[in-house]
Amino acid sequence: MAGLANRLINRPILASIRTEAFRHNLNRVRELAPESKIWSVIKAKAYGHGLEGAFSGLESSDGFALLDIEDAQWLRTHGWQGRILLLEGLFHEDEVPIAAELRCDLVVHCETQLRWLEAFTPHSGHPMNVFLKLNSGMNRLGFTPEQYRTAFHRLHATGYRMHHMTHFANADQVDGLPSVGAQMECFMTSTEGLEAPCSMGNSAAILWHRNAIGDWARPGIMLYGASPTGQHADIAHAQLEPVMQLCSEIIDIQDIKKGERVGYGGRYQAPENMRIGVVACGYADGYPRHAQDGTPVWVQVADGALGVVCPLVGQVSMDMLTIDLRAVPAATVGSRVELWGCHVPVDDVAQNSGTIGYELLCALAPRVPVRIE
Amino acid sequence: MAGLANRLINRPILASIRTEAFRHNLNRVRELAPESKIWSVIKAKAYGHGLEGAFSGLESSDGFALLDIEDAQWLRTHGWQGRILLLEGLFHEDEVPIAAELRCDLVVHCETQLRWLEAFTPHSGHPMNVFLKLNSGMNRLGFTPEQYRTAFHRLHATGYRMHHMTHFANADQVDGLPSVGAQMECFMTSTEGLEAPCSMGNSAAILWHRNAIGDWARPGIMLYGASPTGQHADIAHAQLEPVMQLCSEIIDIQDIKKGERVGYGGRYQAPENMRIGVVACGYADGYPRHAQDGTPVWVQVADGALGVVCPLVGQVSMDMLTIDLRAVPAATVGSRVELWGCHVPVDDVAQNSGTIGYELLCALAPRVPVRIE
Repeated sequence: MAGLANRLINRPILASIRTEAFRHNLNRVRELAPESKIWSVIKAKAYGHGLEGAFSGLESSDGFALLDIEDAQWLRTHGWQGRILLLEGLFHEDEVPIAAELRCDLVVHCETQLRWLEAFTPHSGHPMNVFLKLNSGMNRLGFTPEQYRTAFHRLHATGYRMHHMTHFANADQVDGLPSVGAQMECFMTSTEGLEAPCSMGNSAAILWHRNAIGDWARPGIMLYGASPTGQHADIAHAQLEPVMQLCSEIIDIQDIKKGERVGYGGRYQAPENMRIGVVACGYADGYPRHAQDGTPVWVQVADGALGVVCPLVGQVSMDMLTIDLRAVPAATVGSRVELWGCHVPVDDVAQNSGTIGYELLCALAPRVPVRIE
Repeated sequence: MAGLANRLINRPILASIRTEAFRHNLNRVRELAPESKIWSVIKAKAYGHGLEGAFSGLESSDGFALLDIEDAQWLRTHGWQGRILLLEGLFHEDEVPIAAELRCDLVVHCETQLRWLEAFTPHSGHPMNVFLKLNSGMNRLGFTPEQYRTAFHRLHATGYRMHHMTHFANADQVDGLPSVGAQMECFMTSTEGLEAPCSMGNSAAILWHRNAIGDWARPGIMLYGASPTGQHADIAHAQLEPVMQLCSEIIDIQDIKKGERVGYGGRYQAPENMRIGVVACGYADGYPRHAQDGTPVWVQVADGALGVVCPLVGQVSMDMLTIDLRAVPAATVGSRVELWGCHVPVDDVAQNSGTIGYELLCALAPRVPVRIE
């Protein structure tokens, strides 16, 4: 922890960001989508990993896709010359000139945004790139098929460089409705004859619907080494590597007797005399409070990668969680613990908590120090 | 949003921290625990509210209780002269002189910490305050009843100013095991004859177990206006006020037809033709991905407090959520929305998401701008 500098840190929790894993995962995307350019999606502070590590590991991307114009500015300040896509476009009209100055590509998903762009004349004379969003069935953002063609012509006529875009609701599911096929059909019909590059595929499409990627792929979760479905087994074949490793330490050990209970609500009851390890990580660090008894937690038993997976027991509290140490007699106060990363896939923690890895990664709390490796 | 300065913000999401509500809630604590001094618990960056607003609203506390020594330093830098309690004590021996210099009171919960303090001689000559933690049944941190008395004598003999401390597992539940009564009995027996001030009561004890508070109360969640049980109805009588208000805007509206589906997985299916509002708030802002259809979202329909509560429909995504606008024909792109705060108790959102308000407040994401009012 000594290298963390400047911050006065006592709690032993730490998130490490492995930039080498970013590079590896981006290469895997390129192998899976060799015909496409790659928007690396780094919204939500790079899914909780922080912009700095993501920029460092993903600098060979064709562009970065994000949400906050503040993050676009950060990239420009740090020397990024390539393309930047604002995934939800602009939220207020007065941002149009700022986005133009930052040379951002803009998603346009509604009539209000369209009018702002019609009313704008860029100072530079350079035409801006627009990704016009079609609502092909997800019913979140985008123009309906009926509105789409007119919207395209209006922006094209105003001088914007046009691109088509849509988003899939179920590229990670076999039988979800609407299906990728139905959305693709809607997309093809709506864009027919409107010549422009297109962007469709998210991580799930890149992995499982290679006909539905388009000229610009938009990988997100797979760059971080987690699964679009929330099931680690589903991406085992894709050979992705986890980027974030969340570690902490055992800060106390309780020897409890058969029948005694652990933590809030006394949720866990000891089936025999046993040792309970208290780990300095709780839901205010971003660990899910929903985690059930049995959620895997890795405890190091010797230098290096030698360790044992122990089950979480008892309700996760704000700053701590408790684990069953029966399988690790060698564990002591100070033993290193991995909450997720190389030994415990974040998706396995998510699955034990009724959610997906995305949510856990994004939820990493500001109080957890981050180290870029 | 203009007053936010310095940050280049486009997304319309904003968390407001009402310092007046902090003051009101602290007064309520004093009325409920008139005999006790008050440790205001501001760990986890003041339960997600940020130290600045909490310090401003709670400066009449007798002391602040927290976890990160960095936060203790922040308080001293900002002029706090009163007491500070490190709720989990120290994590490494080299922090002992730092904590002494910052004039922190220390929890001591295990043998390792006890040895560090025995080995330390304060430069100032001022004795440090120690809160010795008894594990009276929660089985998380603390000395067992068998170890406690010896630990007390050792620290007392070394010259520390001693206090007793324990923590309840079920002060918010009627029939949870171990009960408050059982823990109290254990506490009384273990501390008998060891003269020292004691600290026991958390928010739940202050609200429902007034005989179990002690000389130093430790209110946390109630200072933020949420319920220890996770049920808003349980604190209605206590007249607490919500401190955080999380607001955003509608950024798109979809007119969908009967039978169409909304969002990832197509979870929600329209029972009739209807309007869907897309709100700029998702799980990467800290809104719970677990939120079920029907979770209340307040939509403003005119200036001031005039609004309508609409049900959330469809899976919460990373940056957006979708609501049923049938009850609000006046809603447009740009309409203001409250996710939780004055119109929607955070506990009601939590209850619809299988968790408690604590988790939601702490999970407020770093990308959400905070305004102190």
